[in-house]
Amino acid sequence: MDRFEANVQDNQERFLAELQEFCRKPSIIAQDIGIDETAEWVSDRLRNVGFESRVISVDGGAPVVYGEMGSGDKTLMIYNHYDVQPPEPLDLWDSGPFDAEIRDGRVWARGVSDNKGPWMARVQAIEAYQQEIGDLPFRIKWIVEGEEEIGSPNLGRFVEENRDLLDGADACLWEGGRRDGAGRPVISLGMKGIAYLGLSVSGASSDLHSMNAPIVGNPAWRLIWALASLKDENENITVDGLMDHVVKPTADELEYIRGIPFDEEQNKQDFGISSFLKGATGPDIVKQLLFDPTCTICGFLTGYTGPGLKTVLPNQASAKVDFRLVPDLNPELVLRLVREHLDRRGFTDVNVELLAQLWPYRSQVDHPWVQASISVARDIFGAEPVVYPSSAGGGPMYQLCGTFGIPGISGGGVGNPNSNLHAPNENIFVEDYMRSILYTGHLIQAIGNL
Amino acid sequence: MDRFEANVQDNQERFLAELQEFCRKPSIIAQDIGIDETAEWVSDRLRNVGFESRVISVDGGAPVVYGEMGSGDKTLMIYNHYDVQPPEPLDLWDSGPFDAEIRDGRVWARGVSDNKGPWMARVQAIEAYQQEIGDLPFRIKWIVEGEEEIGSPNLGRFVEENRDLLDGADACLWEGGRRDGAGRPVISLGMKGIAYLGLSVSGASSDLHSMNAPIVGNPAWRLIWALASLKDENENITVDGLMDHVVKPTADELEYIRGIPFDEEQNKQDFGISSFLKGATGPDIVKQLLFDPTCTICGFLTGYTGPGLKTVLPNQASAKVDFRLVPDLNPELVLRLVREHLDRRGFTDVNVELLAQLWPYRSQVDHPWVQASISVARDIFGAEPVVYPSSAGGGPMYQLCGTFGIPGISGGGVGNPNSNLHAPNENIFVEDYMRSILYTGHLIQAIGNL
Repeated sequence: MDRFEANVQDNQERFLAELQEFCRKPSIIAQDIGIDETAEWVSDRLRNVGFESRVISVDGGAPVVYGEMGSGDKTLMIYNHYDVQPPEPLDLWDSGPFDAEIRDGRVWARGVSDNKGPWMARVQAIEAYQQEIGDLPFRIKWIVEGEEEIGSPNLGRFVEENRDLLDGADACLWEGGRRDGAGRPVISLGMKGIAYLGLSVSGASSDLHSMNAPIVGNPAWRLIWALASLKDENENITVDGLMDHVVKPTADELEYIRGIPFDEEQNKQDFGISSFLKGATGPDIVKQLLFDPTCTICGFLTGYTGPGLKTVLPNQASAKVDFRLVPDLNPELVLRLVREHLDRRGFTDVNVELLAQLWPYRSQVDHPWVQASISVARDIFGAEPVVYPSSAGGGPMYQLCGTFGIPGISGGGVGNPNSNLHAPNENIFVEDYMRSILYTGHLIQAIGNL
Repeated sequence: MDRFEANVQDNQERFLAELQEFCRKPSIIAQDIGIDETAEWVSDRLRNVGFESRVISVDGGAPVVYGEMGSGDKTLMIYNHYDVQPPEPLDLWDSGPFDAEIRDGRVWARGVSDNKGPWMARVQAIEAYQQEIGDLPFRIKWIVEGEEEIGSPNLGRFVEENRDLLDGADACLWEGGRRDGAGRPVISLGMKGIAYLGLSVSGASSDLHSMNAPIVGNPAWRLIWALASLKDENENITVDGLMDHVVKPTADELEYIRGIPFDEEQNKQDFGISSFLKGATGPDIVKQLLFDPTCTICGFLTGYTGPGLKTVLPNQASAKVDFRLVPDLNPELVLRLVREHLDRRGFTDVNVELLAQLWPYRSQVDHPWVQASISVARDIFGAEPVVYPSSAGGGPMYQLCGTFGIPGISGGGVGNPNSNLHAPNENIFVEDYMRSILYTGHLIQAIGNL
């Protein structure tokens, strides 16, 4: 790979200039700015490097760019997104969010880390690989969507409608990736799902004077009792049957957990808490964070909540409850279990609605392509990778990876601990960007050799 | 009493003119309008009828008018208030709220029923009694306060500071009183108390992304569990020891309960409910309404409660809880019991604050003065009185009656079912006003004969 590395080195200036060009194109899905133009630009660039590429329109959503190239008995799926978060608040940026200035060894731009840098680095790596090493040793199916920053609402439907096109991949190189503060490359292999429920109860036809409380039912109490039946005071989810669906971590996954650095004191200080939930310490904290499903009251509103007092018997109560899901839970299953659980206890008056959903997914950590990605990361970053069998957050990994039963591998990206994703002054180090190009080239070779 | 009745009849025009004059004086405590002037006017009028009367200033509050007259071994306390509710919304009044117009056989004015008419009728009855019958057959201690419409915040302190002055009465003629739709006079002998609690829990130093829920505690859950421990799904208050302090209704009280008319179907329709709490039917509904203490969630707020979703782990949760109290519960006792109950269950993180308080009080229904008032009401109204051993609502009866252990008797007032207390177009019938004067004169005689 010496010629590959030399090529990347020689082209650093051009590669960075092209990254700047890409970052200067606003593509803000939440504000419907620049989506179609950026999708065309992405498709053109993929075609330029040899992909058979096209912009696939999605009914009522942002178009998806799909590119395919290569041949052989192995197929790598790649997932990126070309949309970015809104840049606001603008006054907190030291240089314009779409100026893509390079200073102090970094590129500063909205989306440079999430997710334009990682995509561009992959494109340039493939270009250099072909120039110096030859044809790709396997087929690539590349999906670049434009709605990730608003929760990928149409990705599942896109996959369903293009199943034939996407089927047959061995693994999916996911978006994202970063190195941590100690320079260790971070690889994530899963994401939690979400069942975001709206619960509500109605009472009398209007709010009443609270002197009527001895004879008229109170929806606030009904909802409190219903909620209290979902989770107990020991922080255990008590929805009938729910925990039976939770898959236990494997020995490999637990091994990786022990390798994840977690500064207990720093985190306590950051959160402003004196202890972690369930009294967890050491590796158990990370285990809980990544492997435990949750049932979280995100909001609850009833009656009068202003200053002072109002003696009112409310006639409405509502709550928002966020279940974070791990395999093999899924949103429809959780909705059904909660409904049945409440009905069984007489809470038929509690209305339950599924407001948002995301399926969980966890990759097979012993899969050879996963192991190859870890090994390449170790070489390129010169440090032992930190492997997250799952992230604590959610994402649309299930739609692509779960649907086809293949591992989703997020790693080798351009981020650093202060990349300011979704915040002002998003940035990456030039050094990390170049490293990401190298990582991709070496990963292509490693997978080809499997 | 024939001469008394003739006197009242002859003076009807003058009495009504004087009532109008009083009602034309705005005395709105919530808006600090006309309080001092009205207190002076009330004191002068009492002096005019023979009372030794004075305006007693109350530190930081509205002055209390205190009048004393008569002698003998019996003493009647009288309680009224000279303040009124704000008249707004003004555009819903058919004539000015302080015009005190007489039309269609009624007097229309803010405060005419609550509580200027009842006070004025008593003054005029005493005047006519003295003119025609002679000296009062007992001593009267008359308290006319100016803060009833804002919850009598200083009445308790006034009583404490003037204990010597007020001590030694046999009973207290309370404010209020009305006839119901069937023309039956309503007599109330008690009021519920209130312990209005603010409960709150704090969590992390700021709201967090809900992906942190497996390791960071959620104050919303803590508060829900704490609340769920206060009242069970069968609508029973489960605060340790609280129900032990609830005095059972006496046989007499239960007898009166059975005489209180209550239209089940109409009330269901008005409330928009299909059944009453605990499945109560018949006299049990009224019994529950008047004799059951309550624990009511008046408000609960945590996290995000707007439209759509926000996956947030809140760092604050707070609730407002209204306990309606019956003898022998009191606000300090309830606060202590709730605190101890929560501590015993590990909810030491739940902050509990007493935001407002009112002690409950129930009169001795078999007291001879109570029985005299019922008997006189039966004669004057020509219908069997409806006796409420307690009202469902709260009021400052404890401060005066409970402090001295004497019955508080509310009855013989000027109200009708459509008097619009606290609402636009407050009114009383001229006929009811004259009847109220007669009632007071006859009650003086009846008590004198005891």
